[in-house]
Amino acid sequence: MNNVFGVYNPVKIHFGRGLIAETGRIAKKYSDSALIATGKNSMQKTGTLDRVTKSLKDAGVKPVVYDKITPNPTIKEIDEAAEIVRKNNIGMIIGLGGGSPLDAAKAIAVAAKDNIPVWNYLKTPADKALPVITIVSTSGTGSEVNRYSVMTNPETGEKPGFGYECMYPKEAVIDPEIMASMPPYVTATTGFDVFVHALEAFTGKAINAFSSAYCMQAFYLLKDNLLKAYNEPDNLDARGNMALASALAGLAIDISGVGIIHALEHPVSGNYPSVAHGAGLAALAVASMKYNLESRKRDFMLIAHHYGIKRAGKSDDEYAASLIEKIKEVLAALKLNITLKYLGVEKDKLAKISKEAFMTMGFAVQNNPAPIDEKEALRLLESSY
Amino acid sequence: MNNVFGVYNPVKIHFGRGLIAETGRIAKKYSDSALIATGKNSMQKTGTLDRVTKSLKDAGVKPVVYDKITPNPTIKEIDEAAEIVRKNNIGMIIGLGGGSPLDAAKAIAVAAKDNIPVWNYLKTPADKALPVITIVSTSGTGSEVNRYSVMTNPETGEKPGFGYECMYPKEAVIDPEIMASMPPYVTATTGFDVFVHALEAFTGKAINAFSSAYCMQAFYLLKDNLLKAYNEPDNLDARGNMALASALAGLAIDISGVGIIHALEHPVSGNYPSVAHGAGLAALAVASMKYNLESRKRDFMLIAHHYGIKRAGKSDDEYAASLIEKIKEVLAALKLNITLKYLGVEKDKLAKISKEAFMTMGFAVQNNPAPIDEKEALRLLESSY
Repeated sequence: MNNVFGVYNPVKIHFGRGLIAETGRIAKKYSDSALIATGKNSMQKTGTLDRVTKSLKDAGVKPVVYDKITPNPTIKEIDEAAEIVRKNNIGMIIGLGGGSPLDAAKAIAVAAKDNIPVWNYLKTPADKALPVITIVSTSGTGSEVNRYSVMTNPETGEKPGFGYECMYPKEAVIDPEIMASMPPYVTATTGFDVFVHALEAFTGKAINAFSSAYCMQAFYLLKDNLLKAYNEPDNLDARGNMALASALAGLAIDISGVGIIHALEHPVSGNYPSVAHGAGLAALAVASMKYNLESRKRDFMLIAHHYGIKRAGKSDDEYAASLIEKIKEVLAALKLNITLKYLGVEKDKLAKISKEAFMTMGFAVQNNPAPIDEKEALRLLESSY
Repeated sequence: MNNVFGVYNPVKIHFGRGLIAETGRIAKKYSDSALIATGKNSMQKTGTLDRVTKSLKDAGVKPVVYDKITPNPTIKEIDEAAEIVRKNNIGMIIGLGGGSPLDAAKAIAVAAKDNIPVWNYLKTPADKALPVITIVSTSGTGSEVNRYSVMTNPETGEKPGFGYECMYPKEAVIDPEIMASMPPYVTATTGFDVFVHALEAFTGKAINAFSSAYCMQAFYLLKDNLLKAYNEPDNLDARGNMALASALAGLAIDISGVGIIHALEHPVSGNYPSVAHGAGLAALAVASMKYNLESRKRDFMLIAHHYGIKRAGKSDDEYAASLIEKIKEVLAALKLNITLKYLGVEKDKLAKISKEAFMTMGFAVQNNPAPIDEKEALRLLESSY
C-alpha cells in the first residue's frame, strides 16, 4: 500500500438523528434558492420532503421541487432540471432520497452551469458546478459523500458513471431517522451495495491506507447491522450504523474506485431500468468473487476476519473461500440469492451488457484485481444467469 | 458511536516517494510567492530546503525563506514571520519540517491576514488565512493534515493549541524519502506521538466511526513499523508506513481530539522548550494509561488486538492491561522509558504545569475518558516524575 497516491474529500458530513431539521441553516450559507431533486414516492409519503422544504423556508431559502427523478435517472431528467435551474436562476441543488436523486443532483449542478447536454460531460471535464447538499434516505449509496454521478441514456441503455472535483457535495446530511421508512427490499439492496463498495475498493488495485481504513470499518459495521436493519426496520441504532457504513464505503470508492461487479451491473440496470442497482449487484457478486478469489486471497481472509468469520482450523484457501460462503448466506437471508434471469434480463442481451461494461465502465474494469476481458466478463454474466 | 457529530477535512493529501519535486506545481495554483517556514537545521543540511526552493522557482513561485522556527515555536517567531509576509505581500505559506514549522505555518497564515498579535486568536476566532501547504519531514506530527497549531508564550510558559476551519492546509506533501534523514531520537519521539494521537482519539469521548477507522489503521501500521523505522532508518517502506500512520492519526485527532497526556505535555514542553513533545508524552503515557484503563477497558482490548497482542488465556482485565505492558516494552525499545525528572522538569513546577493544563488545554481535559481534576492531574505528574 506504499506507492504514490492522493486522498481528497472536502464534503462536510453531518451525522445524527433529527438533523434534517438543520437543512435550512446549512443551505442558507450557499444560496437563497434551492432546487430539490427527488423522486415521486417515499420522500413525499413519509413527510420528509415537507420537513426539508419547511426547514429551508424557515431559513429564508426558496425551495423549488423537481420530483421527476426515476430510480435510474436519465439524461432527459437531468437536462430538464438543469434548464429549470438556469431559467429561475436557482443557486444550489439539494439531492433528497436514495442514490438516484443524489447522483442526479450532482449532474444537475454541473449541467446547470453551461447550456450543454449533461451527456457531454463524459468527455469534457467540468470544472464548475452549483453547490450541492445531499440528504440521503437509504444506506446506502455512498453518493452522499462522493463526487460520482451515474446517469442512464434510455435510448442506448448505457449507464456510465462520471465525477469531477467540482461535483463534491458541499455538505451531506445523514439522518438515520429518515431511513427507518425504507422498505425491506430497499434496505436489502442498498445495504448489499455498501458491502460491494467496500469489497471492490478494498480488493481493487487502487487501494491505499486511507480507503482500506474506511473499508475495514465498513465491514465491521456491516457484520452486525446489515441483517439487523433488514429484520428490525425500526432499530435506529442498526439504521445509524448502516448509514455510517454507507458513508465509509462511499468515501472508500471515492478514493479507490470499484471493480467488475459494478462494471457489469451498470449496463444491467441501464438496459433494465426497473432493476434495482443492489439487486443487480447481488446477482453478479458470487461469480465475480469466485473470479477474483485467487488474486486476492489475503484480502479475502482479512475481510473474513473483519466480517467476524471464525478461522477455526481452516487453511488459508478455505478461510479466504469462507467469505464467499458467508456472502451467499447473507444474500439468502436478504432474499437476494437471485440470478440475472430472475431479474428479467434476457439471455441474448448478455453480450451487449458485457460490451457496454468495457465501453462505459472502463475505469472499474481496470481497477478489478484479476485481469478480465470481454469474453471472461461474458462468462461471468452467464454464470450469474 | 452513534450520536450526533460532524466530519470534515478538506486537505488534499499527496503521498509518495519523490513528491517534494512537485511542490512548485502544487503551489503555483495558489500564488506566485511563498514564505517557507522552517527551522535552522536538518532541512538545510539534507538539501531538502534547496530542493523545495528549486521546485518553486522552476514553477515561477518566488520563495522567501524564514528559517527561525524553533522546536516549540514562539509567538514572537510567528508574529515576526507574519510581518514579513504582510510587508512583502506574500501570497502563501509553506511549512517545511516537523510539527513545529507546520504548526507555525498555519499560525502565520492566520496572523498575516490581520495586523494583530497571533496570541489574540486564542480568544478571537479567525475566519480567513493565507493558503498553506505542508511538507512534513517527520512522522509524525499529524499537523500536516489537520487545522491545529500549537504555539508557546515564552514569557509565561503557556503552550496552547488552537485551530479554525480556515487553517486547514490546502495541500499536504508526504514524501517518505525526506524522512530517512530523521535521527533515531526524532524517529522515536515523533513516532510515539503518533501512538498517543491514535490512543487519545480512540479512547476519547468524541470518538466516532470515521476517526476510529483512522485510529485502527494507525495502530495496525504502528505495530509493524514504529520499531522498524527506528532500527532501520533507511527502510523506506517502514518510513512510508509511519508517514501514513502519522497522517491517519492526525486526521483522527482533527475529528476527535486528544486527552490528558497531551493536555499535560503541552505545559511541560511549554515551560521546558528543550523537551521534545514526544519525549514529554513518553514520560506521561504509562501513568495516564493506567488512570484511564478502568473507564476504557474494552477500547484497550481492541487496541491490544489491533496492536497484534495475542489474547491467549488472558481475562478481559488482563488483556486490557497487557496493552500498557506492551507500551512499556515499546518505550524501552525506543529508549523512551523516561521520567519527567530525567527530562529536567523541576519538581516544584509540577503544580504550575497541572494548573496550565486546565487553563490552556481544557478541550483535551474534557475529552479524556476518565474525569480528572487538577489534583488528580498533579498526582499523574508526580507518578510520571
